[in-house]
Amino acid sequence: MEVPVIRNLLEANDTLARQLKNMFAARRILALNLISSPGAGKTSLLERTLTDLQQEFGMAVIEGDLQTDNDARRVAATGAQAVQINTNGGCHLSSSMILEALGSISLDTVDILFIENVGNLVCPVEFDCGEDHKIALLSVAEGDDKPEKYPLLFNLAAVMILNKTDLLPYVNFQMDTAERFAKKLNADLVTLPVSCRTGEGLANWYAWLRKARAGKLHG
Amino acid sequence: MEVPVIRNLLEANDTLARQLKNMFAARRILALNLISSPGAGKTSLLERTLTDLQQEFGMAVIEGDLQTDNDARRVAATGAQAVQINTNGGCHLSSSMILEALGSISLDTVDILFIENVGNLVCPVEFDCGEDHKIALLSVAEGDDKPEKYPLLFNLAAVMILNKTDLLPYVNFQMDTAERFAKKLNADLVTLPVSCRTGEGLANWYAWLRKARAGKLHG
Repeated sequence: MEVPVIRNLLEANDTLARQLKNMFAARRILALNLISSPGAGKTSLLERTLTDLQQEFGMAVIEGDLQTDNDARRVAATGAQAVQINTNGGCHLSSSMILEALGSISLDTVDILFIENVGNLVCPVEFDCGEDHKIALLSVAEGDDKPEKYPLLFNLAAVMILNKTDLLPYVNFQMDTAERFAKKLNADLVTLPVSCRTGEGLANWYAWLRKARAGKLHG
Repeated sequence: MEVPVIRNLLEANDTLARQLKNMFAARRILALNLISSPGAGKTSLLERTLTDLQQEFGMAVIEGDLQTDNDARRVAATGAQAVQINTNGGCHLSSSMILEALGSISLDTVDILFIENVGNLVCPVEFDCGEDHKIALLSVAEGDDKPEKYPLLFNLAAVMILNKTDLLPYVNFQMDTAERFAKKLNADLVTLPVSCRTGEGLANWYAWLRKARAGKLHG
């Protein structure tokens, strides 16, 4: 009984996701779905990105959280458009939530739309939000075995951001182990080590964003 | 259509959970359900606990993971009985999985049963596994705002273990902030700061375990 209903939910979500994708394509908006464990640094990455690239791109953020609007307030402080979705306990965002949130965003000025999903490495992966790419974040404090243990996300993501590299001297995390597990799942995955605290490595993330956005203009 | 089916699933799970609770009570087994984000240190806490208390208690572990038996192998290396459940992508354990795993455990020698749930702060909270208590783990690297942002778990847990205190000098984490958010949800929550790396604070966790197990003997 469970399986067909879940399949119907996923099919309905996928239909709406395709419509969102068409709309983003028509408007040349690069849409990125950020997925990680709680506390891996999604909001910190957005704060840095929205600040450092604000002269270059129009950017907006849809923030997904169980409760609170803390994250939307943090990213709105950079000057970007931000909308908070509270899932009230729900473990992931879906395309219908994105569609509703888009009603509060002035899309004409948006080049890049960031969707910050609920902190969860499992459930958000199955629910397409109409994004061009899923971006996986992994904090080095979480351990280098996580791509092997939570393969769903790393299998589908375009980029794996390894955040909190400033903590590397204090934790047991081998970059090449994490990357090896991830590449076994997904040979095309781009690995970007960064520290949102020190700024180390962010230039590579910004270069990736520029290229991905350029791809939307000429695609 | 979604809601009633999910309610039926939860009701079926709750019925089985009550039967498990009765069985654990009859056998004087303390059953604990460990819930955290990926990489907060559930397996490390178990490795320390199973080693340090092995003369004192009979202990067994049911390990829940999407994939791999890495964690069961890590805890079995301490000499404890360990069973791995692979959910094949499923985001939480349920009572029926626990019942099946118990078929591979010699319960006569077990005083404490640890259930290590899938790394996820949301979905496992709703699915009772027949445990006496839920134990929440939070790594200080995840940030002190997590009890406020993921209230489901902290609302229901008996204990909040704040792990990786050895990283406190290198991260922005205020103990009293995390504890204040958590206590607002749950005035009875016991907060235990520990470092599974250095061993700091583990004596308090062991004292809590002794008291909880004694409660099962005299309950």
